[in-house]
Amino acid sequence: MLIVGERLNTSRKQIKEAVSARDRESILSEVRSQVDAGAGFVDIHAASSEKGRESDDLNWILDLIQEEVPQARICIDTTDPETLASAMERVGHAPLINSITGERSGFEAMAPLVQNRECHIVALCIDDKGVPGDTKQVVENAASLVSGLEGLGVPRDRIYVDPVIQAVSANTQAALIALEAMETIRQEIEGVHLICGLSNVSFGLPRRHLLNRTFLSLAMKAGLDAAIVDPLDRKLMSTLRATDVLLNQDPYCQKYTKAHREQQLVE
Amino acid sequence: MLIVGERLNTSRKQIKEAVSARDRESILSEVRSQVDAGAGFVDIHAASSEKGRESDDLNWILDLIQEEVPQARICIDTTDPETLASAMERVGHAPLINSITGERSGFEAMAPLVQNRECHIVALCIDDKGVPGDTKQVVENAASLVSGLEGLGVPRDRIYVDPVIQAVSANTQAALIALEAMETIRQEIEGVHLICGLSNVSFGLPRRHLLNRTFLSLAMKAGLDAAIVDPLDRKLMSTLRATDVLLNQDPYCQKYTKAHREQQLVE
Repeated sequence: MLIVGERLNTSRKQIKEAVSARDRESILSEVRSQVDAGAGFVDIHAASSEKGRESDDLNWILDLIQEEVPQARICIDTTDPETLASAMERVGHAPLINSITGERSGFEAMAPLVQNRECHIVALCIDDKGVPGDTKQVVENAASLVSGLEGLGVPRDRIYVDPVIQAVSANTQAALIALEAMETIRQEIEGVHLICGLSNVSFGLPRRHLLNRTFLSLAMKAGLDAAIVDPLDRKLMSTLRATDVLLNQDPYCQKYTKAHREQQLVE
Repeated sequence: MLIVGERLNTSRKQIKEAVSARDRESILSEVRSQVDAGAGFVDIHAASSEKGRESDDLNWILDLIQEEVPQARICIDTTDPETLASAMERVGHAPLINSITGERSGFEAMAPLVQNRECHIVALCIDDKGVPGDTKQVVENAASLVSGLEGLGVPRDRIYVDPVIQAVSANTQAALIALEAMETIRQEIEGVHLICGLSNVSFGLPRRHLLNRTFLSLAMKAGLDAAIVDPLDRKLMSTLRATDVLLNQDPYCQKYTKAHREQQLVE
């Protein structure tokens, strides 16, 4: 299970302030703690309401991380092609790009940036008709995105398909649609990864973390092998470790018992 | 989701003592709290190392419950046919019988007791070869038990098949075998219920409650519609309520939001 750490996001007030103040230690501490907790990539999201600011902020963060925590692998989280282009120049390893969608104009703008470049890509199953309303549409969007990306030279095992989970409060079938889509993609598009942000599923309901981590477990059974989460959320990580044991994805229960010894598991 | 409350069990020290002392209030309090927490049946297990004692103890408990908490539906939990026969005489509604297995001698001893009687039955997928080692054997045992019970006049919708989960610490495939068996039984033996005790799955590992409730959630996705659990375990019940929402089995999230209002959900 690949963990993409989601904490370095300027929609969080303390991150926004740390970035504004160019507070190196606060940023580095967020990076180190996520890497220590098992994040395979650290997502960096620096969107801003001020025009032109996103790219400067993102690049400052990237330079800082590469200088001080070179072992951290970076996930560039932006919807702006220029910001992405500039960021990709600075990252010395194959980053994860979050994300590309099947919307024609967006895909065409992103395509030259990833063509024949060393990178991993989150492919969001949205097309020009918007967020898909049933399993079949999710799977069709996934197939179309994978074929488009392979056409640009991105190997399949570097593509992370995101089925785009919606809120169960708005559509009571939303979680079932995403789970069925994951099962089908796992069968029909061999070798591709499945990734998901979890928090949409619980929008509008109380005790959202409970719903999010329960959905994580069900999604792992459906084939999810990567997730954009907070690796410092001990309850969520406990559910993840327990699910890995139950699905026989944690040989000799090594990760589970290590987490237990380090008092990370919440019973 | 049918909850069978497991707390009234003489393997628990305080229950054993309360039964020995004929402490009516302690027993009634365990019954009432489980019914209030949503138990559709209350399991009564009074096995004892003293010969002949089980039946006396069980019958005392049954009479007490029927007198004082008549709305509680009773699950008679015994492996002894004579104890079962005597208990069934006393219960004024169709009880759940926990359990009958596919072992020839056991099945033959239990058969006359349930033949054409108003009861629900937990059918444990064990036969004379013991606990099944793969999915195919579980499903074969289930089919054979269902056909045997239907032959005795038990309607299919009163049969609760238990796939007999084993410990993942002993067989890392154990949870996957049970989940796959449940999915297959759900498809192939239409109309039957699926029930499970959870605690075996985590035997030999730390933080067992975490593994048990995570397995519950995965099993519900695989078709489990009844579980033998402690309905006062708030973390487990929170996982159950969240899973019901995600699987669209809680119309309008009514049970989930009610549990939230009553401060029963653990986030």
